[in-house]
Amino acid sequence: MAGSTFGTLFRLTTFGESHGAAIGGIIDGFPANVSVDVAFVQSELDRRKPGQSKIVTQRKEADRVQFLSGIFEGKTTGSPIGFVISNEDAKSKDYDHLKEQFRPSHADYTYHQKYGHRDHRGGGRSSARETASRVVAGALAKLFLKSKGVSIHAFVSQVGSLKLTAAQIQTVNFALIETNLVRCPDPILAQEMENYLLEVKKKGDTVGGCVSCVVEGLPAGLGEPVFDKLHADLGKAMLSINAAKGFEIGSGFEGVSMLGSQHNDLFLPDGSTKTNHSGGVQGGISNGMPVYFKTAFKPIPTLIQMQPSIDIHGNEVELLGKGRHDPCVVPRAVPIVEAMTALVIMDFWLRQQANQR
Amino acid sequence: MAGSTFGTLFRLTTFGESHGAAIGGIIDGFPANVSVDVAFVQSELDRRKPGQSKIVTQRKEADRVQFLSGIFEGKTTGSPIGFVISNEDAKSKDYDHLKEQFRPSHADYTYHQKYGHRDHRGGGRSSARETASRVVAGALAKLFLKSKGVSIHAFVSQVGSLKLTAAQIQTVNFALIETNLVRCPDPILAQEMENYLLEVKKKGDTVGGCVSCVVEGLPAGLGEPVFDKLHADLGKAMLSINAAKGFEIGSGFEGVSMLGSQHNDLFLPDGSTKTNHSGGVQGGISNGMPVYFKTAFKPIPTLIQMQPSIDIHGNEVELLGKGRHDPCVVPRAVPIVEAMTALVIMDFWLRQQANQR
Amino acid sequence: MAGSTFGTLFRLTTFGESHGAAIGGIIDGFPANVSVDVAFVQSELDRRKPGQSKIVTQRKEADRVQFLSGIFEGKTTGSPIGFVISNEDAKSKDYDHLKEQFRPSHADYTYHQKYGHRDHRGGGRSSARETASRVVAGALAKLFLKSKGVSIHAFVSQVGSLKLTAAQIQTVNFALIETNLVRCPDPILAQEMENYLLEVKKKGDTVGGCVSCVVEGLPAGLGEPVFDKLHADLGKAMLSINAAKGFEIGSGFEGVSMLGSQHNDLFLPDGSTKTNHSGGVQGGISNGMPVYFKTAFKPIPTLIQMQPSIDIHGNEVELLGKGRHDPCVVPRAVPIVEAMTALVIMDFWLRQQANQR
Amino acid sequence: MAGSTFGTLFRLTTFGESHGAAIGGIIDGFPANVSVDVAFVQSELDRRKPGQSKIVTQRKEADRVQFLSGIFEGKTTGSPIGFVISNEDAKSKDYDHLKEQFRPSHADYTYHQKYGHRDHRGGGRSSARETASRVVAGALAKLFLKSKGVSIHAFVSQVGSLKLTAAQIQTVNFALIETNLVRCPDPILAQEMENYLLEVKKKGDTVGGCVSCVVEGLPAGLGEPVFDKLHADLGKAMLSINAAKGFEIGSGFEGVSMLGSQHNDLFLPDGSTKTNHSGGVQGGISNGMPVYFKTAFKPIPTLIQMQPSIDIHGNEVELLGKGRHDPCVVPRAVPIVEAMTALVIMDFWLRQQANQR
Repeated sequence: MAGSTFGTLFRLTTFGESHGAAIGGIIDGFPANVSVDVAFVQSELDRRKPGQSKIVTQRKEADRVQFLSGIFEGKTTGSPIGFVISNEDAKSKDYDHLKEQFRPSHADYTYHQKYGHRDHRGGGRSSARETASRVVAGALAKLFLKSKGVSIHAFVSQVGSLKLTAAQIQTVNFALIETNLVRCPDPILAQEMENYLLEVKKKGDTVGGCVSCVVEGLPAGLGEPVFDKLHADLGKAMLSINAAKGFEIGSGFEGVSMLGSQHNDLFLPDGSTKTNHSGGVQGGISNGMPVYFKTAFKPIPTLIQMQPSIDIHGNEVELLGKGRHDPCVVPRAVPIVEAMTALVIMDFWLRQQANQR
Repeated sequence: MAGSTFGTLFRLTTFGESHGAAIGGIIDGFPANVSVDVAFVQSELDRRKPGQSKIVTQRKEADRVQFLSGIFEGKTTGSPIGFVISNEDAKSKDYDHLKEQFRPSHADYTYHQKYGHRDHRGGGRSSARETASRVVAGALAKLFLKSKGVSIHAFVSQVGSLKLTAAQIQTVNFALIETNLVRCPDPILAQEMENYLLEVKKKGDTVGGCVSCVVEGLPAGLGEPVFDKLHADLGKAMLSINAAKGFEIGSGFEGVSMLGSQHNDLFLPDGSTKTNHSGGVQGGISNGMPVYFKTAFKPIPTLIQMQPSIDIHGNEVELLGKGRHDPCVVPRAVPIVEAMTALVIMDFWLRQQANQR
Repeated sequence: MAGSTFGTLFRLTTFGESHGAAIGGIIDGFPANVSVDVAFVQSELDRRKPGQSKIVTQRKEADRVQFLSGIFEGKTTGSPIGFVISNEDAKSKDYDHLKEQFRPSHADYTYHQKYGHRDHRGGGRSSARETASRVVAGALAKLFLKSKGVSIHAFVSQVGSLKLTAAQIQTVNFALIETNLVRCPDPILAQEMENYLLEVKKKGDTVGGCVSCVVEGLPAGLGEPVFDKLHADLGKAMLSINAAKGFEIGSGFEGVSMLGSQHNDLFLPDGSTKTNHSGGVQGGISNGMPVYFKTAFKPIPTLIQMQPSIDIHGNEVELLGKGRHDPCVVPRAVPIVEAMTALVIMDFWLRQQANQR
Repeated sequence: MAGSTFGTLFRLTTFGESHGAAIGGIIDGFPANVSVDVAFVQSELDRRKPGQSKIVTQRKEADRVQFLSGIFEGKTTGSPIGFVISNEDAKSKDYDHLKEQFRPSHADYTYHQKYGHRDHRGGGRSSARETASRVVAGALAKLFLKSKGVSIHAFVSQVGSLKLTAAQIQTVNFALIETNLVRCPDPILAQEMENYLLEVKKKGDTVGGCVSCVVEGLPAGLGEPVFDKLHADLGKAMLSINAAKGFEIGSGFEGVSMLGSQHNDLFLPDGSTKTNHSGGVQGGISNGMPVYFKTAFKPIPTLIQMQPSIDIHGNEVELLGKGRHDPCVVPRAVPIVEAMTALVIMDFWLRQQANQR
């Protein structure tokens, strides 16, 4: 109950600090006899890793996953899948000054208040590095879901004030997502975002963004009333990602100003609906339409600028953000959003199997 | 794992359909020796119940809670607290036509797809009536939290396009919330909202809205990294409420377009912060500042208008919404938001107690 | 986590004290579309209830179960099944003297130490009356399992020193169990047990006993390594029954003195085994052979004799057991053992469904 | 829910097969700021490891634990503690013949039936090697509990028919346990057990045994009614250990033939009791007296003898047990019993902290 486990039937438990020996996790509940494409898992990790392009941090992390159990002769055995990713290129010296100082809007202060003793190097447990373990588990879940006809695509839908419209989000050409550094499926907007990010980066500043995600091929019936609604668990999953501050499904916050007569999704004879303001979920249960949702990420708090702050004794200090950081979290958040989505969907898939008479 | 339980250490399990014999629940994990003010619990239920004013449904439900266990001589015993609320004034006949027909954007279709067999009367298990059980448990949690100096206030911050600004939300006079039918703390805006709702209701239509919530008096250190971040669990709690489609904490979606240098909350020497864009949470853990967040609710799908739909055989039908329904969910959602907030905060409180050396 | 919930996918949560308004529970995770034979559920409750014969307590409790939700038109809906059993014939006055006194080997002292405030009447939450809720849930589970070809039979295998041999336990004629008051399938031994119990009762004393249980029709593959072995969960289930002090599966404690060459169950070509010292479980997973196990119950501590004890202030007192009590727990424990067995087996059944690719 | 996690607040999740790359685990819920004596953890592992003496298997496994996270500058941080133990000296060739053959009374057959695909080498996931991870977590729990004044001592109380009496078990000199190879605190009986084991080993046979355990220094109040009774969770913990077939607490199976007037533990003025037939638990909650219990282990099924069996096609085969195996599990089970006990006690300790008002 200390928060390191996600999922009910398909469960990921993670461990590891940014600058410790390794990070990793245990996946429990993966069905036996599923072929594991390790190269695919690694390719997902590569999408998340630092150093990919000029708009992300230049830290170099090999991020090679090593599976330790649960896979035998290329297939899962039903036993727990243990894995580790070694920490490398950790410039812990960059963080020496932070042992007793709190960076504004980071987790330094809250971890100190909660635990009294923390690994301050590189954010320790609160570092986004932890999400690499989620990507590994998510990649395995994607392999399972793909065999069931379910696909998951996330993409950047907003950087600063530059954004896709609601209509555009529902008609994305997924093939365009990986054609640019920002991972925005609109090439023109992507170029604007990229230019903007380079400008922000040059100032040592950062900016927020949104990642949207679409799940296709999901049958009706996934999700559990009352508390474990499909979108409630998706929301929790997204909000558990570092820097996430908001979540909406379907029409979300924009739907608030609509009338019911505009918002209701009328049925077609086959049970599909003419519109999809619901985002593929009604009463917390999938209805067979595409599930789409959006997650808001705040600006990364690490600035390459001087900032006033305090230390653990309450003294005022001046902090200069060192290290190598992203100007915006969203390009690298795309595979993380997909991974967390896959964990949620696979969990509900197994739960639905359990529900049967 | 069928979704009827909320919480880890402080747990609420609910049961009951809208038109069955009763709804109710079991609260497990409530510490012993806490005085129970049953009148307060009932008053919270009364805030949620139908028939309170001209802008909510005119259904009459007494909604009297009856405690069956766990309270002895006015104090909790540490044993599970079982309770029931009888169903009354259930005009089940109003729903006969829905046995084989699906209302647009309701849970009728998804329950049918998931279970094959459902209690169609009044929405059955998917009815918002279930939230009365949450209000009971939330009221008990509020009593516990009050003794710890924690207060929770929710209010309507948006109806249709009428809304409070971000700045207003952080400086609300809580005493004004219950002074108007809408439960909006700005009396002038509240009047506009009320007028608008009466207009919408007259057309047999509905509209969406937002409920904001502020938690004060919370010490630093509540919330569990990595997956069970304070705002992740708050998000799940809010999204589990009927008709919720979005959630944001602190700056939320608006924070996306800010720069890090604007968004960072700079520390004061006592550990508090000059601004509170974080919404009182950093790294998933409370930082001692007020926690505030907002939940978006879609327009209620039940219209007192003719709507085209389908039946379970895929035949096209015409549906006329009968029954007595709210034009907007948010005035009655206020106590539900508070209740779910109380459940989350109390759960993290107990978890933090468990964490100690 | 306060211990009122049993099971992972098929979950029972109970509430209620012996002399409160009612006891009851919520069953979550029961698949939809299963026909519910309410008369069967009641008949199982009747097997457990007091006042059935001269060798059990003469308290009269109607023990009528009332279902409040989750069953519609005779079939389950997949929604949680809430139920209550009202408390009647509660002679709370019989317990007035116990408000500040601790009965030896009862839970009075430990509840007082744990909670500081307790419902002392009739044992409160620690009363075996709570097991009536388990019998209700177990009866529903039996209905599900019966449709899968699984049968569960418990019986008394020991009272005091009078006992069935290991060989007899594996070849029981289940039809004889309910032909005598003791519920021992050997009519001659049953008569001896009955005579012995009447003798013990006359002295105001009590004695221990064992209940054995056999599960037939279970396919191979149920149970989860490593921690949730089939017999580990069965053991926990049995040990959670009031007065249980021991559990063994298959050869159990007798198997300790056997050699491996005697104890190993050799295979027949169809995968079944010549002997069944394993009790139908290997590596924590069912192997398709009958699962059989035994639970030891201590003598009930309530004596109709004068006993020295202490009160909450540490003063020495003399206690005379009043009330109406059983001389031995095992005849009425038979349906409780079956119920808890059904809960465990059904839970593993659903978990195995979830495991599938 | 696939059984790889133990505990509710203090949780161990394990992974790993006998002949895979490594075994290991993640400990979540360990409070921050506890000093970790890594040498002590390793010494506990050494007590469990093979090759210690002539009465245990001669396999050589270094069993070096490597901590990967959660410990910083010698103290816990409250973050999850990840650890691995590499597999070495794995003579996988010894198991080639078992790829398609089932050893009698092993988990080969049941894993095959459950999963269809298994790592057959050295028992794979069903190997007792997995318990090394439990010993690591248990050692950390012991460090925590020691600081609270709680001590845990397990010892061999039976090998074959050679056993300590009930009275002896309650008056053990713990200092004698580690003075002999068998880990029996009675030196004379220990010598007889050792001689007997060498004799059994010479024949290529095996025999069963019992391990008893005593917990001292436990305050009253630990354990949760109704389902999570202290002894119910201890029972589950013990029965989850490989080869365990029985569990009893206090008077256990012997108490069955006692009268209530003999069995009741009469109070002394300070709340302690004159006798301790209850084994330190009443109503599932500790009463402040020593908690003692016993676990029965069957004879290890691997014989160095020819045995008839079947293969996955149902053909009859002759199996000769190869590999290096123990003649009896109990000497090496002693540290495992202690470890699992420590996990249970520490979990209830944290739960009790959470329970407070």
